[in-house]
Amino acid sequence: MRTQVAIVGAGPAGLMLAHLLWLGGIDSVVLELRGREHVERRVRAGVLEHPTVELLREAGVADRLDREGMPHHGISLRFDGADHRVALTELTGKTITVYGQQEVVKDLIAARVAAGEPLHFEVSGVTVDPATPLITFTDAEGAEQRLECDFIAGCDGSHGVCAPRVDATVHKHEYPFAWLGVLAMAPPSHSELIYAYHERGFALHSMRTPEITRLYLQVAPDQRVEDWSDARIWDELGHRLSADGFTLATGPILEKGITTMRSVVTEPMRQDKLFLAGDAAHIVPPTGAKGMNLAIADVWVLAEALGAYFREGRRDLLDAYSDTCLRRVWRAEHFSWWMTSMLHQAPDADAFARKLQLAQLRYVTTSEPAATSLAENYVGLPLQL
Amino acid sequence: MRTQVAIVGAGPAGLMLAHLLWLGGIDSVVLELRGREHVERRVRAGVLEHPTVELLREAGVADRLDREGMPHHGISLRFDGADHRVALTELTGKTITVYGQQEVVKDLIAARVAAGEPLHFEVSGVTVDPATPLITFTDAEGAEQRLECDFIAGCDGSHGVCAPRVDATVHKHEYPFAWLGVLAMAPPSHSELIYAYHERGFALHSMRTPEITRLYLQVAPDQRVEDWSDARIWDELGHRLSADGFTLATGPILEKGITTMRSVVTEPMRQDKLFLAGDAAHIVPPTGAKGMNLAIADVWVLAEALGAYFREGRRDLLDAYSDTCLRRVWRAEHFSWWMTSMLHQAPDADAFARKLQLAQLRYVTTSEPAATSLAENYVGLPLQL
Repeated sequence: MRTQVAIVGAGPAGLMLAHLLWLGGIDSVVLELRGREHVERRVRAGVLEHPTVELLREAGVADRLDREGMPHHGISLRFDGADHRVALTELTGKTITVYGQQEVVKDLIAARVAAGEPLHFEVSGVTVDPATPLITFTDAEGAEQRLECDFIAGCDGSHGVCAPRVDATVHKHEYPFAWLGVLAMAPPSHSELIYAYHERGFALHSMRTPEITRLYLQVAPDQRVEDWSDARIWDELGHRLSADGFTLATGPILEKGITTMRSVVTEPMRQDKLFLAGDAAHIVPPTGAKGMNLAIADVWVLAEALGAYFREGRRDLLDAYSDTCLRRVWRAEHFSWWMTSMLHQAPDADAFARKLQLAQLRYVTTSEPAATSLAENYVGLPLQL
Repeated sequence: MRTQVAIVGAGPAGLMLAHLLWLGGIDSVVLELRGREHVERRVRAGVLEHPTVELLREAGVADRLDREGMPHHGISLRFDGADHRVALTELTGKTITVYGQQEVVKDLIAARVAAGEPLHFEVSGVTVDPATPLITFTDAEGAEQRLECDFIAGCDGSHGVCAPRVDATVHKHEYPFAWLGVLAMAPPSHSELIYAYHERGFALHSMRTPEITRLYLQVAPDQRVEDWSDARIWDELGHRLSADGFTLATGPILEKGITTMRSVVTEPMRQDKLFLAGDAAHIVPPTGAKGMNLAIADVWVLAEALGAYFREGRRDLLDAYSDTCLRRVWRAEHFSWWMTSMLHQAPDADAFARKLQLAQLRYVTTSEPAATSLAENYVGLPLQL
């Protein structure tokens, strides 16, 4: 096999890159370890930034998103027993859209299939040679394959095969807490997301559909899902999300899981002909809802750079790829760290630290410049900074 | 002796309170342990917020300030080897004024003396009884004195006799570094303040007059002034303040000293008839230039509350005094902590932490909302939040 761009990973980054390249007349082959059903059901992020939605629209893959996605014009920071709304749209003119990552994946797979372009699920034994470049793998039928290409895009996440092939500095930060996330058959209790600061720990009220709520609780990183019965989860959510006039709708819990919180940044995001994008290059804690959005921004930069190369023979954008992406990545890392630090109870926090958190929460919800700063990050800064 | 308000401490807080009360027709007596010459020479803060300057003007004690104070319309954050200006006046419509704290003290003492109102220097053995209320002390001539009053204002700083008489929660935070400050007979090397982020540690370029520079270096908290020869100081300043096209003017060092960095907040700022104001109630690290400005805001709130009491018999503003002040105090504590954290090298900082600092510095100097947020805090939020 031979292609222009070999793409490892059929998550949002890999699939969006394949789609953008196809729009630009550049051939690619997408390889994915898992099956189609698995990737289409994997529950992940659920908040799309304004620039992400714009790009999906421009790329012609937003029909269902525009029908089913829920545009939000604000978020609430809940503390001192009350909601303090950050009016995203009033402050920035932009909205966010609640639409599950797996829905984006479904839409992009459908587009790929409709285009009749190569997308191989259930491959195994993938090896990546960034210099030649060359990929070998075993396809779903058990046949050994060699994939020759001009470039490789490593979009296979933080546990994938591509990241270890890049000789880079990896910056890491572990947060001293984790998120217990649940998907519940219960209607949202509030029309917008609620980020709750509480002495018992952070909680987040989010939603997926008018019938399904997505809820999160800060827990110690050593907690196991088995420690958290449904009753205990609802009880704890009730405490942390309590506010005057607010009733938490409950219902059967469909899924629960614990995610550790960490930051990772790989510098540079490139090795020879191999370019990393999305989680393969960087991880953010979920508090800022930035993970998938960063992945989409990366592959937009990469698609533009590959387009300039194949159309005009220009290498400058490819050479700038890592620096270009990292400016936005570090901005998002900082924002995610900032949101996380402001809202969580750190195990070593003293009363002074908690007072500072509250001072910051009060400021950010009463000062227009401060609220606008939060809002412009939350709705998404331009794809290229 | 009897007065309406006994004021302990003739720093900016005590003297300004005495002046505001005098303007409102309320009698006070000011007691100070040190001599007049000492307090008029004590080098401290040097940046006046916009609301501080406005208040000094309204109070009729800004003639010399308006002649000699240096209005500044911006500050520079220096990192990545270049200056990134925060245009305070463009962003907020307000200015800051560089004018030494001891100059404010001189002006206020002059006003007090001109008014012929009681101001006792070199008192000793001060005891404070918040309940009666009553103060006893020995005057400069060695005579024992009893000062009966309606209220006591504790404006005698963090090491004074008043703060320990308040049964309060004292929130404290120690920063893992100190500032080595020097006053040099050298013209300012730049027309505005420069806050320099550098891998060797923070440095600050400030000024007092067109001939005198005020410079600071972040040092370890265990450093002693004797460790820092003049040559070593200039050498280190040269490193940390280096930038393209910038030359650091040097000259004889007139004064040097090391200040530890800490945050302290006393809650509540009141015990019975005793009200704390300024450093007696709270300390901020100097990075945000907030210390004296907070003191001035406190005594404005207190003078208004005492005025309402003596004119109309209202106790509500006195009862609200502590909460009113603490809203602004915690805002300033947060801002000071934020500026400090963004600009200093913490001993335990890893590469990730430094990357976040740089991401924040780049953001705050390129985003208008973020720059405006810094600027509105720096020029000073309203006296009452």
